[in-house]
Amino acid sequence: MIAEISPFHAIAISREAHALEAQGRSILHMEFGQPSTGAPAKAIAQAHHVLDTDPMGYWESTALKERIARLYADRHGVAVDPEQVLLTCGASPGLVLALTCLFAPGARVATARPGYVAYRNTLKALYLEPLEIACGPAERYQISADALAGIDPAPDGLILASPANPTGTIIPPDELAAIARVCAERGIRIVSDEIYHGLSFGEPAHSMLEYAPDAVIVNSFSKYYSMAGWRLGWIVVPPDVIGAARARMGNLFLTPPVLAQRAGLTAFDCVDELEGHVDTYRRNRKLLLHALPALGLARIAPPDGAFYIYADISHLTNDSLAFCQKLLRETGVATAPGVDFDPVDGHRFIRFSFAVSTDRVEDAIARMTPWFQAQGMQR
Amino acid sequence: MIAEISPFHAIAISREAHALEAQGRSILHMEFGQPSTGAPAKAIAQAHHVLDTDPMGYWESTALKERIARLYADRHGVAVDPEQVLLTCGASPGLVLALTCLFAPGARVATARPGYVAYRNTLKALYLEPLEIACGPAERYQISADALAGIDPAPDGLILASPANPTGTIIPPDELAAIARVCAERGIRIVSDEIYHGLSFGEPAHSMLEYAPDAVIVNSFSKYYSMAGWRLGWIVVPPDVIGAARARMGNLFLTPPVLAQRAGLTAFDCVDELEGHVDTYRRNRKLLLHALPALGLARIAPPDGAFYIYADISHLTNDSLAFCQKLLRETGVATAPGVDFDPVDGHRFIRFSFAVSTDRVEDAIARMTPWFQAQGMQR
Repeated sequence: MIAEISPFHAIAISREAHALEAQGRSILHMEFGQPSTGAPAKAIAQAHHVLDTDPMGYWESTALKERIARLYADRHGVAVDPEQVLLTCGASPGLVLALTCLFAPGARVATARPGYVAYRNTLKALYLEPLEIACGPAERYQISADALAGIDPAPDGLILASPANPTGTIIPPDELAAIARVCAERGIRIVSDEIYHGLSFGEPAHSMLEYAPDAVIVNSFSKYYSMAGWRLGWIVVPPDVIGAARARMGNLFLTPPVLAQRAGLTAFDCVDELEGHVDTYRRNRKLLLHALPALGLARIAPPDGAFYIYADISHLTNDSLAFCQKLLRETGVATAPGVDFDPVDGHRFIRFSFAVSTDRVEDAIARMTPWFQAQGMQR
Repeated sequence: MIAEISPFHAIAISREAHALEAQGRSILHMEFGQPSTGAPAKAIAQAHHVLDTDPMGYWESTALKERIARLYADRHGVAVDPEQVLLTCGASPGLVLALTCLFAPGARVATARPGYVAYRNTLKALYLEPLEIACGPAERYQISADALAGIDPAPDGLILASPANPTGTIIPPDELAAIARVCAERGIRIVSDEIYHGLSFGEPAHSMLEYAPDAVIVNSFSKYYSMAGWRLGWIVVPPDVIGAARARMGNLFLTPPVLAQRAGLTAFDCVDELEGHVDTYRRNRKLLLHALPALGLARIAPPDGAFYIYADISHLTNDSLAFCQKLLRETGVATAPGVDFDPVDGHRFIRFSFAVSTDRVEDAIARMTPWFQAQGMQR
């Protein structure tokens, strides 16, 4: 029997949103975690140049691997050899690559619940066993070193995400260090999903590499670099995993898109434009954190990073998917139901993605204000 | 223990070839299976337009899926629903997707030996068991229905490739039909790698879908469409597999590059330019089939398609990797050692890829002629 995998419900919401849009309805897309902005202007200019000059065969950019390695020196004070960097077609296959390098079928891998739906599903598809650790508002929806120390027997692996999806919470440096210690003591291999690095609203996020040199890091150009549809990501593996990782990369995936690699290298030089996007997200976050409590959505962990707000809607519904559908149909605001992120408690949560322009966030708040008031009165 | 996977030796040859090139040596790249031409001009023009007008988020092209479905109607007389088509980042992740949809760890999957190295390695990486069936010149290096009927117990699956890599041989329609019958009788799921379709020098290749409606087809834009570095491929799955395939696509891979999808759709309208490449390969094939016997390389199965010649060099060496290295260092002609395609008998074979311009093939023949004469005399 092949593994059974649950569907991603936000896709159904998005399909309905696009169908309504095709009928002429005005839709505000807050259901997916993707910037509404395009790649930086200089990266696009570079792509034009590459299109005209490069026949684009199978290729991986040594210069890009060197630039990514330098990121860890510059930002995290960690030495990474470019050979430790593998370029992937986004973070999703990067996670597949990381998991197949580290674990064999039957291995138990801990994740936070709520968490990104693909962790659970990818683990299942590879016949690894997800160990979902319930993390509530008290733990700011993150796995702690204590929780990890208490799992008996010790899991084989751990997937961490900081900033996290769907909550945007960041694990503080002390806790990252404590988690690294527990993992070293108990022989737990760490996969750290750092795809939302660069998107933080207070202290910048730390890399797990600062505390666990043998962690495998997953990252991509889809979020901070605003290049989701270009399909480019990377993983950093410790020296003892390079051979296994390169062999899997060459056989299971080959190389990532040439155009994305060359434009991605240019994107590193576009800090001003990219920081402008972060400013937009910061404004959007502030607007939503001010508005949502007034709508009765007060139980949220203020996001430290990423571009999500995960809100408790248990006073309004016990069926987050139906709630998202109703919200979409009646206001045009598309959101993701909590069941995507948490099969146990997610039926009473909803996720807003605020990676849109500020005027769209304002429009969404204006539409939702009377709607949520009416919902409250119906109960 | 994670699965052990052998390296792809052609990559080592290619690295050395590029190092020699960097030292100023003239190198003829015949080691990899990729066109030296770029994407069709109209596809590149479309990509320029998309770069300027589309922010490129996560997206899959319904129009492209419809166009691909139509290909099976037009070329093979088979009705395919666009929902049966899944777009991937090339054929490599397409194969991973196909295998994870059909088989659980421990499943036994038959492949031809010699065959594309990634079949064996991807099967191993997913903890499936490759059953390599020795196929010699008498079977034109392809698995036959008879061979398949004789495997006891019946395997769970079969990976077919026609035209094949490394030999370019095509399975005739009668034999495809017979293979489909054996697979239906014995409950063997078929994965048919049709990545070299469009590249044939006699009769066009038939799709396994004509004979086995429940086969999973793997294909891509990397070969005929000359878009290897764009990373775009597809799989066609039977209706009962759509749910499992979509769930795995969304979790393990998300979507393929937007630019490749939009340019790929345009590439369907570039038949003249693409058939021009096939004419080049036809010329190159003829030149090599004439020249190689004169060099003492007479034991080859004349390729029906693709752009490879797999030649027996057992009269010259018992170590194809060392032989390829020597050939490269002394003539600048880079080739792939047979050990990549056949761990048992490949040490006495070498693969030439003729997906280069005709003047490069002529140059390669001119350089190899005295060299092979000298090799023969040294023995």
